[in-house]
Amino acid sequence: MNKDNIYLTTIPVDEGLNIYLSKVKEVCNLQYEEIQAKDSLGRVTKNPIYGKYCSPLYNASAMDGIAVISSRTEAASESNPVTLLEGEDYVEVDTGDPIYPPYDAVIMIEDVLNDINEGKERGVKEAGVKEIGHKETEYSECLEEKTIKLNFLGTKEEDKKKRVVITDYASPWQHIRPIGEDIVSGEMLLPSNHRIRPMDIGVMLSSGITKIEVMKKPTVAIIPTGTELIQPGEIPKRGDIIESNSQMFAAMIEEAGGIPHPMAPVPDEYEKIKETVSEGVAAHDVVIVNAGSSAGREDYTVHVLKELGEVLIHGVAIKPGKPVILAIVDNKPVIGLPGYPVSAYIDLDNFVLPVLTYLSGKKLKEIETIEATMTKRVMSSLKYKEYIRVKVGEVDDKLVATPLARGAGAAMSLVRSDGFCVIDQNHEGVEAGEKVKVVVHRPLIE
Amino acid sequence: MNKDNIYLTTIPVDEGLNIYLSKVKEVCNLQYEEIQAKDSLGRVTKNPIYGKYCSPLYNASAMDGIAVISSRTEAASESNPVTLLEGEDYVEVDTGDPIYPPYDAVIMIEDVLNDINEGKERGVKEAGVKEIGHKETEYSECLEEKTIKLNFLGTKEEDKKKRVVITDYASPWQHIRPIGEDIVSGEMLLPSNHRIRPMDIGVMLSSGITKIEVMKKPTVAIIPTGTELIQPGEIPKRGDIIESNSQMFAAMIEEAGGIPHPMAPVPDEYEKIKETVSEGVAAHDVVIVNAGSSAGREDYTVHVLKELGEVLIHGVAIKPGKPVILAIVDNKPVIGLPGYPVSAYIDLDNFVLPVLTYLSGKKLKEIETIEATMTKRVMSSLKYKEYIRVKVGEVDDKLVATPLARGAGAAMSLVRSDGFCVIDQNHEGVEAGEKVKVVVHRPLIE
Repeated sequence: MNKDNIYLTTIPVDEGLNIYLSKVKEVCNLQYEEIQAKDSLGRVTKNPIYGKYCSPLYNASAMDGIAVISSRTEAASESNPVTLLEGEDYVEVDTGDPIYPPYDAVIMIEDVLNDINEGKERGVKEAGVKEIGHKETEYSECLEEKTIKLNFLGTKEEDKKKRVVITDYASPWQHIRPIGEDIVSGEMLLPSNHRIRPMDIGVMLSSGITKIEVMKKPTVAIIPTGTELIQPGEIPKRGDIIESNSQMFAAMIEEAGGIPHPMAPVPDEYEKIKETVSEGVAAHDVVIVNAGSSAGREDYTVHVLKELGEVLIHGVAIKPGKPVILAIVDNKPVIGLPGYPVSAYIDLDNFVLPVLTYLSGKKLKEIETIEATMTKRVMSSLKYKEYIRVKVGEVDDKLVATPLARGAGAAMSLVRSDGFCVIDQNHEGVEAGEKVKVVVHRPLIE
Repeated sequence: MNKDNIYLTTIPVDEGLNIYLSKVKEVCNLQYEEIQAKDSLGRVTKNPIYGKYCSPLYNASAMDGIAVISSRTEAASESNPVTLLEGEDYVEVDTGDPIYPPYDAVIMIEDVLNDINEGKERGVKEAGVKEIGHKETEYSECLEEKTIKLNFLGTKEEDKKKRVVITDYASPWQHIRPIGEDIVSGEMLLPSNHRIRPMDIGVMLSSGITKIEVMKKPTVAIIPTGTELIQPGEIPKRGDIIESNSQMFAAMIEEAGGIPHPMAPVPDEYEKIKETVSEGVAAHDVVIVNAGSSAGREDYTVHVLKELGEVLIHGVAIKPGKPVILAIVDNKPVIGLPGYPVSAYIDLDNFVLPVLTYLSGKKLKEIETIEATMTKRVMSSLKYKEYIRVKVGEVDDKLVATPLARGAGAAMSLVRSDGFCVIDQNHEGVEAGEKVKVVVHRPLIE
């Protein structure tokens, strides 16, 4: 790794990013925090997460029906119905109810007859069950399809206990979800470095986990610089520029799982910029300075960053977006972005998002591309990797990509575009009719 | 459209969803709200949005350099250098500075010599410019690469005005971004029904738009029902179930752009459920009742919803997830989800998310699938569309999908799975070695 500062050279994109990311990984400590498991969507686990309780917490009925002692049902068959007494031979259970000894099996409600004396015929009618004991019928698997109100009729005056009749035996543990069937206490629910999804929140809570340690969301100070900048909503006078980049950056940082902190514009004065960058570095995990990243008369950013820390890269072979500054100040990434919105957008995507994903433990999403046919010839210099904004349309069932305005200041052509056709540095361009891959505009982080 | 209530039938998934969505579109009014443009990431525009100011707001220099009167530069060439007087023939400008008449062109700083008397040689050295006027050199396009400090030396005692020398003419409007080049006042920036991206926020703000009307985020009441339910964090006693579904739903709703409102568990009592559903419907855009969606002894949900409104669907041919209830109460969607977490997850995905995307003006994301080879035979009934949880791995450079536990209660098998192999209702299963498409677990909404 070249540790020398590289001053507004045009280092290839990948090389520049690698140098910078290696340095970031070397000097930046990953940070963690404890949060509520219920609020952990999209966060990344620090350590593996182990279940506290079993799920189910006890042997539970998997069906609505009756809990029975399986040994007392062994003799039951269609030709030999068996009568069971409530509280002795069986208890009623609904799905999820605990099963206590001596009960060790559940018979589904539609396999239970009301009373032997009432007869199968009546049982069928009252229960709304068409067939009993025919496990292959259309209805046998469809517990939920029936509203069965068992009508427990006593048949003898002296016997007040409810009784039911079964015509099939119950195997031990049939229709019982044994304790820990889903989750065993102490079982690993989630590995470390796992990005939490909705179902993960469900199992954590159901296993008794309410707080977990996750990687902290990186906070990002956004410092706009420029004496001519005014805030959105102010009435512009001649020479004013409405500061709009900060909120575009904020949205991109939010999509990437960071916490943006846009600051008020700082005038083009060396000391003021220096002071604000120092404040940003003291309070946040990452700092973006925009703009003044080039090497013009009033481009102070690089000088400030050199005084405060180390500038690793100044200038990358990318178009738009060449004058980017990749620096470290007090072991924190500080990135200077150019002022033109399209340049800034492309640089943030290429250089800031990988830093944020590293700090938040996430992975860069696989870039989504679609194949399209270029409608016009586009030439590109071997001096840089070029991002051509393209509009994608369908013509004769084929996707075609039409290049839009290439100027770094043409923010509307970014808005109108559906994606970028990226021309690698070692390519001189694309011919009309050539098939290209278009990187579709999407959040780039999963 | 069949407007009759369909009672725990097993209607095919698509048919059930179509019937319900048609009804939702018929009765639910879309709602809008005004928000800050800077906070509009991911929101959907109600109307087209038109720019208020031009961008740039004035004719602006596109380069660091000097603004000149083009007609006075016409004679300049390498063999005929022309001297320009500051304040008469030129003014210094930085990128973005306004250009006022009579100036009508900009010459880049590296094409400007300090002084004719100092000579080209000295100019080159002091300015750090290797070659002048050679537009094809490596440096000519790289304004940002140089730190040029012009040293304006007066050459005659009587002439205190700074002067510079040029060796090429400037075309009118060269290196000037004319007013409105990017955005013209009144131009449509974004169409209606457009999901706002970071670059859209940038152009809105830079064109003076600070507030916009967007579709309201639907709020969703989540009502857990069950006497046995306790909240996460409480110590469970025998028979208790920790209520974990609500927070899983909340996370899914959040991913889908809704605002979840989980409520406290309601005991299995008809009147209490009815009261809570009425409160939910009065206060929110969508209500989820979980569980009691089946047709068992204590499954009151469907009866409550029939009393309060209209149950369109009860039961869909999907596994897990059959006992789902799709209802309308007071022109609002009320959906009963089953208690088992996997069933509930699949039903929320299939039936709640399409309702949320409709209400928030979004589109369901194209479902991401990967192709893999099934490692085991999986049989599935023609009675339902089945969602088989699968783990995807790589064996000999090929992706293989291994089916996991199929029980609706096996939440951990959902967590361990990478996606679903969906077996259509008219298929009896998948053979070992057969190629299948796996729907990868991802946020399903773009």
